[in-house]
Amino acid sequence: MTLESDLERYCVETAIASREASRKLAQTSTALKNRWLQECAKQLPQKLDEILAANALDLEAAPGFGLSESATDRLRLDRPRVQAMADAVRDIAALPDPIGETIEGSVRPNGLEIRKVRVPLGSVFFIYESRPNVTVDAAAICVKSGNAVILRGGKEAWHSSDALVRVLSSAAQEVGLPTGAVQLVSTTDRAAVGHFLALSDYIDVAIPRGGKGLIERVVREAAMPVLKHYDGNCHVYIDSHADQEMALRIVVNSKCQRMGVCNACESLLVHRQIANEFLPRVGTALIEKGIELRGDSDTCNLLPLAVAATEQDFYTEFLGPQISIKVVSSITEAIEHVNRYGSHHTDAIVTQDLRYAQAFTLGVDSSAVMVNASTRFNDGGEFGFGAEIGISTDKFHARGPCGLKELTTYKYLVYGNGQIRN
Amino acid sequence: MTLESDLERYCVETAIASREASRKLAQTSTALKNRWLQECAKQLPQKLDEILAANALDLEAAPGFGLSESATDRLRLDRPRVQAMADAVRDIAALPDPIGETIEGSVRPNGLEIRKVRVPLGSVFFIYESRPNVTVDAAAICVKSGNAVILRGGKEAWHSSDALVRVLSSAAQEVGLPTGAVQLVSTTDRAAVGHFLALSDYIDVAIPRGGKGLIERVVREAAMPVLKHYDGNCHVYIDSHADQEMALRIVVNSKCQRMGVCNACESLLVHRQIANEFLPRVGTALIEKGIELRGDSDTCNLLPLAVAATEQDFYTEFLGPQISIKVVSSITEAIEHVNRYGSHHTDAIVTQDLRYAQAFTLGVDSSAVMVNASTRFNDGGEFGFGAEIGISTDKFHARGPCGLKELTTYKYLVYGNGQIRN
Repeated sequence: MTLESDLERYCVETAIASREASRKLAQTSTALKNRWLQECAKQLPQKLDEILAANALDLEAAPGFGLSESATDRLRLDRPRVQAMADAVRDIAALPDPIGETIEGSVRPNGLEIRKVRVPLGSVFFIYESRPNVTVDAAAICVKSGNAVILRGGKEAWHSSDALVRVLSSAAQEVGLPTGAVQLVSTTDRAAVGHFLALSDYIDVAIPRGGKGLIERVVREAAMPVLKHYDGNCHVYIDSHADQEMALRIVVNSKCQRMGVCNACESLLVHRQIANEFLPRVGTALIEKGIELRGDSDTCNLLPLAVAATEQDFYTEFLGPQISIKVVSSITEAIEHVNRYGSHHTDAIVTQDLRYAQAFTLGVDSSAVMVNASTRFNDGGEFGFGAEIGISTDKFHARGPCGLKELTTYKYLVYGNGQIRN
Repeated sequence: MTLESDLERYCVETAIASREASRKLAQTSTALKNRWLQECAKQLPQKLDEILAANALDLEAAPGFGLSESATDRLRLDRPRVQAMADAVRDIAALPDPIGETIEGSVRPNGLEIRKVRVPLGSVFFIYESRPNVTVDAAAICVKSGNAVILRGGKEAWHSSDALVRVLSSAAQEVGLPTGAVQLVSTTDRAAVGHFLALSDYIDVAIPRGGKGLIERVVREAAMPVLKHYDGNCHVYIDSHADQEMALRIVVNSKCQRMGVCNACESLLVHRQIANEFLPRVGTALIEKGIELRGDSDTCNLLPLAVAATEQDFYTEFLGPQISIKVVSSITEAIEHVNRYGSHHTDAIVTQDLRYAQAFTLGVDSSAVMVNASTRFNDGGEFGFGAEIGISTDKFHARGPCGLKELTTYKYLVYGNGQIRN
């Protein structure tokens, strides 16, 4: 390999260190991984002053990066927020270790014992937005699942992340975890990302979390597989057999409980049979919450408060106070609409008829299909995963919320007593 | 989308037809999929004349493609070979349907019932070498696992594949399986592959099977995930606590039982403590089988019949009558060598000491790690999968032999009774 620059050399050395640490981590006991997590949780509040001093540098630079007030607030650390990080790390320590699980096994007619055993993926390259708590969370999730991680945080939080990773590294030295298990990319040079994405010999998976532009760049450039999180254009379909009180509650919660997130509802489908009764009710409730209604022509006829939707509206993840609405004539039309315009993230049906519930869950090709529940429940915490590194919109490897188990793969262990093949 | 050519238009239409068929197949019952398989098995021998007539065209053209005698023989169809295809299809019909399996499930504290359910990947683009039986096999495996498939076979077998797919389509019409479930790319234009690889909206996974050049092209160009099968540089490590009779049998079988395959042994590691006793025995046995020995300096000292290995030899998948040999001083050195020079495919240890067996299986990062068994057992048939579409050398999504289950993903079905999120 010819290294064209100091930057490239740095990236290769970092990736090799990650690969070496990953080999050791794959053989590290649950007890030692948990000791590290507990030590991190202990040291984080102890080193509060250093963490806050670093954070102050980021806060000082925030206006220069053009950060909004709310973005600056998300960047800000204080004693309760650092304590919350430590608590989250303790929660991850308490989760079961996925590594070593026998997923399945059998004895073959020739006596070979075959076990499919869960093992770590190896080395993870994690590229993420600027909130500092993500640094600690991602490191804890990766190491608990036996993976080494290279963290590439946003430049806006670089000093904070650096201080946090120093704590994690000091804890690693304290308990004897391999150095190289958690590394923060020490430069904010964008070219570094490209170098890392080429190093598929040393890095097993890239996980981008952030805007669509970043994700598209990573997908385009990565030589290794990418676990990605595109958009969530989520639907709620109100069937003719819905309990309308329940439907109202679910639509309003799915749309309004938190608008800027991927599992929020962006589009409402209503069966023609109940549209004239239900649409005015739901329309009023949504408008009371400040939501703009963009309806197809049937909707606009029944709901004078709605504006006409464009076709593009039905493809759009608004992440804000807008919703697209369409009247459909059958569950088949609803399913086809969801599969065509949706993003295969989270879609819900409200119905009391089991046949329609079954048809919808079978026909809709999404990571989570909800029956009589808010779309907002598609979440690692709500699913009981304990921790999540993102929600995959891929079908490959992992789909939906990604917790510890989704950062693993498997290998086959085959025990014999001299078998050879005929 | 602007379509630049008739070829591109054809590819897009084919991919859309595949997507549409995949939606229907995801909802198709096991009974109907099996009826199709049985109908294929019935029609294949009935349409022997048409199949052989098409095959004759391929055989006629074979010299023009520069096919070797053995390659031409693999291309040749006759009554027993067509019958064998039909039998293989019946075997696949008899396998359990992976679709619909509840992988895991729980009830959350708020009463939500969450099930993780196995579903098809969707539409598969399969690019493969020229043996006509692969056409039928791949189609049967994909459809049984609920996937639509676009088959891109080698141009050398195009007429045969076309005749075979006509039979499969006629069976589909007979039983009412969606047209579009199995499509053969109707052109041998290489540019078609590039067009298909761009269509990630309609195709969920690309599976290349063939030479390294093809696989590298697919990995480079594919916008969708790739399930790939790179090389198998497989090791057998003879520990100091090995039963030497068993070790001899396993080395010879792993190396010689079939040399041109990915799970054949390419490299032998021998612990220093037994090298002076074991190496001459295994060396003689391998030379009797016509194998050339390429050893490190320790090996050459103990085995005058060995030639000096280059470092490149230890990285090489010979797929023929050569083997690289190295003397190692510890199991740690053996593990590090395997992880560094190997291809993470299949590696074996021969030992009677459980501690070393455990250290090797834990430390070696390969799809299958064998203890006291031939490397040749890493195979879907030997693992009891019943059918396989390849052996994945990836860690992502599927690792090792890929049968029906490896062509699936999952979705979460969440049943509630009106739950909303606080």
